[in-house]
Amino acid sequence: MSDFSIGVDLGGTNLRIAAVNRDGRLLEKITLGTKVGEGPNQVISDMCDAIQRLTAQHGSDGKLIGAGIGCPGLIDMEAGTVRKSANLPGWADYPVQKEIERRLGIPIFLENDARAAALGEKWFGAGRDVENMVMITLGTGIGGGIILGGKIFHGMNGMAGEFGHVTVEPEGVPCGCGNRGCAERYASATALVRMAKEAIATGQAPRLAQASKGESEFSARTIYELAAQGDEPSQRIFQRFGRALGILLADLVNVLNLDMYVIGGGVVSGWDVFAPAMFQEMCERSIVYAATAPAEIPARGVGAAANIVTRTRRSTIVTKALLGSDAGLFGAARLPVR
Amino acid sequence: MSDFSIGVDLGGTNLRIAAVNRDGRLLEKITLGTKVGEGPNQVISDMCDAIQRLTAQHGSDGKLIGAGIGCPGLIDMEAGTVRKSANLPGWADYPVQKEIERRLGIPIFLENDARAAALGEKWFGAGRDVENMVMITLGTGIGGGIILGGKIFHGMNGMAGEFGHVTVEPEGVPCGCGNRGCAERYASATALVRMAKEAIATGQAPRLAQASKGESEFSARTIYELAAQGDEPSQRIFQRFGRALGILLADLVNVLNLDMYVIGGGVVSGWDVFAPAMFQEMCERSIVYAATAPAEIPARGVGAAANIVTRTRRSTIVTKALLGSDAGLFGAARLPVR
Repeated sequence: MSDFSIGVDLGGTNLRIAAVNRDGRLLEKITLGTKVGEGPNQVISDMCDAIQRLTAQHGSDGKLIGAGIGCPGLIDMEAGTVRKSANLPGWADYPVQKEIERRLGIPIFLENDARAAALGEKWFGAGRDVENMVMITLGTGIGGGIILGGKIFHGMNGMAGEFGHVTVEPEGVPCGCGNRGCAERYASATALVRMAKEAIATGQAPRLAQASKGESEFSARTIYELAAQGDEPSQRIFQRFGRALGILLADLVNVLNLDMYVIGGGVVSGWDVFAPAMFQEMCERSIVYAATAPAEIPARGVGAAANIVTRTRRSTIVTKALLGSDAGLFGAARLPVR
Repeated sequence: MSDFSIGVDLGGTNLRIAAVNRDGRLLEKITLGTKVGEGPNQVISDMCDAIQRLTAQHGSDGKLIGAGIGCPGLIDMEAGTVRKSANLPGWADYPVQKEIERRLGIPIFLENDARAAALGEKWFGAGRDVENMVMITLGTGIGGGIILGGKIFHGMNGMAGEFGHVTVEPEGVPCGCGNRGCAERYASATALVRMAKEAIATGQAPRLAQASKGESEFSARTIYELAAQGDEPSQRIFQRFGRALGILLADLVNVLNLDMYVIGGGVVSGWDVFAPAMFQEMCERSIVYAATAPAEIPARGVGAAANIVTRTRRSTIVTKALLGSDAGLFGAARLPVR
């Protein structure tokens, strides 16, 4: 007998619904395609059907506490709506939370997907042993979440954690947000492909050029594979990625001084090719990181900065996420647990 | 009858001690020179004498709750020591908190001066009506403090709020912390003087050159006065200052989404010459600010970014501090109040 909750990861492509018990054990997961084209009503119906199936299946084992739903985009938590989402067009005025509560009669919690992923990693992943952490999700863009005291920190309007739009290059690449040189213009899957195309255009990246003409989709994974095989232009792209991520992290460590910074999302699989540049940048650029980095992180600059601030006992941990693409699902399932 | 507490602002030059009641009313303030050269024992004796005089004077009006002490540099709050301070050399191993508690028999609270100033502005200054705010103190360098739920947010090692070392120019001016292009290399009194000397060296800033040869000290104030009189090279220096501060603020708003950002410290007196560039940079660079800026802030970029994120009702306030050089004193006096 164990109470359980439902986590939903409502993406533009996949709709995933999971039953998770209080200890973070996955009881069952259902993966559906998201019928975005048929509008919110149909998607909500599919979601509710799946939640009811999971409840019927596992309801004899314990009480259903409620369901949490992680969605891409800007969530209006007061209204219970998806106010702005590139992946869920036309949902702005649909009363997501109220409608699902009406249909199922259980408490429903709406949350941004990157914030939900941060909560998932805190409770069941890399952040299990800390109360205060940041999670950075590297995907098409950069998502973010701040966890303080074990809970998502929302800020005044639920917008805290917009790490993707922190400036890392004041005169850099223009971003759709109106800024130039946003972190996600250098440290995301989209950015890797853009930088690869720029490298190809110089005529100095023959293997990337060849790969881009192949039959399969030219993606961040292709660039990673070339980098891992020793292709220097591809490695330089991942170094640029690592430096941008390092500047973002250095800023976050200087501002927040939290226990842990968890890096997740699909692109984190390129860790071995971008992490060295990332750590070097953090050591050089963050006085707080240099004073609190674990002893095993070797990099230029630590020595210099450590002379300014005496080294402390508790270390700043920067680490990979543990839950992979399930972080948001687990985090959503945690939302109803008070 | 009103209980009161003692606030101490322990600077490298001045030692200020104030009795403040629970409502933030100043009962009496004593200003002494800090005898830094005579070591911590003498300075602590002077401080204790002043605290005892204030207690004798006001003790009949109410109960003394305790004393808070704001110090420049890195505070070890667990040990109750000033671990690293350029202004208080040789204090690292002196048990400040324990020694004062031993002499006076009242609870003593040690805090970094910029964090104390943030607490002062929250309780008795610009931030009276908000629970969550940031304060940026523009002085020789940049100090910072984050207030969450009405309290100072310390982070893991008491280092949260190192805003001065956030990167605003990745390939910019080297900083003593080991980084390049730190915010305080562009948005501080020191930075103003450096940028003025650079402008003089180009031969294109005749009025600055003339002022630098004058008998009086060539300071941030001189540059401000020239800018206010319409001297273009001086105005450009303050615009550079405003842009750097705007990048820092844009980053903070994107990361934290707090209710209020208070700008204090001596250099804030140049607000009229640096604020326009600061607000413009924030509007262009922060998607969160553009969505939450008060309607009266006119700047390029707001429109564009506001199309991405729908404007919300609650606004992000960026404003001048109200307590001037007393912010740290009032904040220190608030420390013992639970």
